Amino acid sequence: MPHFTLEYSANLDGILDMGETVEVVRKAAVETGIFPLGGIRVRAVRCEHYAIADGRGNYGFLDMVLRLGEGRDLATRKTAGEHIFRKLSAHLDPAFAKSKFALSFDMQINDKETSWKRNNIHDALKVETVNG
Amino acid sequence: MPHFTLEYSANLDGILDMGETVEVVRKAAVETGIFPLGGIRVRAVRCEHYAIADGRGNYGFLDMVLRLGEGRDLATRKTAGEHIFRKLSAHLDPAFAKSKFALSFDMQINDKETSWKRNNIHDALKVETVNG
Amino acid sequence: MPHFTLEYSANLDGILDMGETVEVVRKAAVETGIFPLGGIRVRAVRCEHYAIADGRGNYGFLDMVLRLGEGRDLATRKTAGEHIFRKLSAHLDPAFAKSKFALSFDMQINDKETSWKRNNIHDALKVETVNG
Repeated sequence: MPHFTLEYSANLDGILDMGETVEVVRKAAVETGIFPLGGIRVRAVRCEHYAIADGRGNYGFLDMVLRLGEGRDLATRKTAGEHIFRKLSAHLDPAFAKSKFALSFDMQINDKETSWKRNNIHDALKVETVNG
Repeated sequence: MPHFTLEYSANLDGILDMGETVEVVRKAAVETGIFPLGGIRVRAVRCEHYAIADGRGNYGFLDMVLRLGEGRDLATRKTAGEHIFRKLSAHLDPAFAKSKFALSFDMQINDKETSWKRNNIHDALKVETVNG
Repeated sequence: MPHFTLEYSANLDGILDMGETVEVVRKAAVETGIFPLGGIRVRAVRCEHYAIADGRGNYGFLDMVLRLGEGRDLATRKTAGEHIFRKLSAHLDPAFAKSKFALSFDMQINDKETSWKRNNIHDALKVETVNG
């Protein structure tokens, strides 16, 4: 059930392809090995209006939040988060080169007592594995 | 002060009317009886860019988060959440039929010590009740 | 690392300039004196689809969430939040006059153990200070 939401300043669209950017995060999340494949969901939200720092410069930002389920210890989460951040950060080098940029990544843990889901992607992936 | 935010993959727009979808959630929230009517706010955020599971299939998602105030016990929140999820899930049957889809719903509780609000909807509803 | 995200009903665009609105929040955040200037990021997310209260009136909303780092005590956070809310609320007077409106503001604290960042705005601001 990992949810990655990337909020970003609209001016980033002129520097990076956001379709590629969410794919970079998806791949990095798979590589950590701690998430069920069928549960990984990465998405980006473009923010047309923003105000940063002193409000004057050619500033931009991308802020990613991962919401994940309970049950992974801190060391596991830190190792996985470090890996994903490193991949995303490298992908954002052009943004740091072309603008003054702030990248951030935080994790939140969902309360399993108030969590509901329905998902037919898991089954679709199993069928692929059997037939593939 | 219940806030329902639905993030969804843009391809869902071809399957469901999102105006109807937020209305389904609003009605279900009213039906729980645990929220002041004037405080219910449901909204949807369309995500143009997303990457799901193995990144290959015709996948889609809708992820709903409810942020609500303190003061309701776990049993109350679970019963209410179950009701709302069931209504939303039934409404999404077409998405599960036409694509590989992941639906999720989580709750978060706002800290009442750092919560501010201003709302003239409550008063408008009272006037309606008196005049209606 | 303060992140202000404003979600708002699309009908607010006819009443307020959202570029000015995020700037009001940015200035108020600077005025609190508790945030490093280069870390302040305010953005707005327009919600095209929404359903509020009884679903009938000319309703609107703006909901702001501040995510900030650990290390500031409750009194400091309350004083800062009060200031920012007062400025934002005054700016929204036209929305309350022209529609039935719900404004809200909540704070969340990021877990510093699972928080990553990269930021070259801080350095850019230092250069400005030296040269300015």
